[in-house]
Amino acid sequence: METFTIEIEPLTKAAFAPFGDVIEIDGADHFGINRNTVERHHDLAAVDVGVETGGKTLISMVTCNELADLPYQLPYVERHPLATQAFIPMDFTPMVVAVAPDVAAPTPSQIRAFISNGKQGINYHRNIWHMPMIFLDASQRMLVVDRGGPGNNLEEYFFENTIIELVKA
Amino acid sequence: METFTIEIEPLTKAAFAPFGDVIEIDGADHFGINRNTVERHHDLAAVDVGVETGGKTLISMVTCNELADLPYQLPYVERHPLATQAFIPMDFTPMVVAVAPDVAAPTPSQIRAFISNGKQGINYHRNIWHMPMIFLDASQRMLVVDRGGPGNNLEEYFFENTIIELVKA
Repeated sequence: METFTIEIEPLTKAAFAPFGDVIEIDGADHFGINRNTVERHHDLAAVDVGVETGGKTLISMVTCNELADLPYQLPYVERHPLATQAFIPMDFTPMVVAVAPDVAAPTPSQIRAFISNGKQGINYHRNIWHMPMIFLDASQRMLVVDRGGPGNNLEEYFFENTIIELVKA
Repeated sequence: METFTIEIEPLTKAAFAPFGDVIEIDGADHFGINRNTVERHHDLAAVDVGVETGGKTLISMVTCNELADLPYQLPYVERHPLATQAFIPMDFTPMVVAVAPDVAAPTPSQIRAFISNGKQGINYHRNIWHMPMIFLDASQRMLVVDRGGPGNNLEEYFFENTIIELVKA
């Protein structure tokens, strides 16, 4: 088995753009609502729940109770062909994600890994491969906005001949 | 002007059911995902973004920077005829909401007021009148899941002859 090493980059809108949206207030359009007592940072993610296949929007929460260490071996990646999927942190804990583009069989060199600043959420676009998110120091609850409805919205991909290892930059 | 006084109740799923959903982990269905490393508390709100009128799901954030005191005079109520609207707290601050049922002209005695435990979100159902949310001790960011798209999705209603006052229970 070969080992392929990927350095974890800071999560930014520009770096993550090929894979999805970074959900954060910084830099987002905003305007006053409720007679200007409230500021609305508007439409932070391109949500697409696949209404053409009977999809509807779900709001869920996930809690991840296993912590990981670096270097971390990526177990597999998954993707959702019918809809986007957004995760928004509720406990301000940095999260590490690895992603790969919309291709049938991603190669190790196509993978990129990011670490959030703890307040950033992300919205994976359709068919973007992603690793189950990990947390290094503390776990947290996350709010999820994704799709419910008929059809198979989950594919998994395993790297058979290569160990993919995420490391500190 | 008459004054009509409303005692603020604790927010619970049962008490809020006529108006919308309480978004919280307690009591919600949950199951393992990502090979059981993550627990998913699934589908916590009946989200309805009005796809039949061209609605799409938006993820936004709002920040409310004005604090209120009790007793509090309710300025007006608003409602959204085309879609639901969900608010999920991101800074664990109790929020006070007042709501009234889906009628053309709510009466003071139809209003109910609730205070959250700081972690609960809410999802207003279509046409449920609600006061712009207030915070008593500290402000916070909230995640919003609601509708973007064509059409008028905002109505406001003012109580002309009565001062509606929210008080501690």
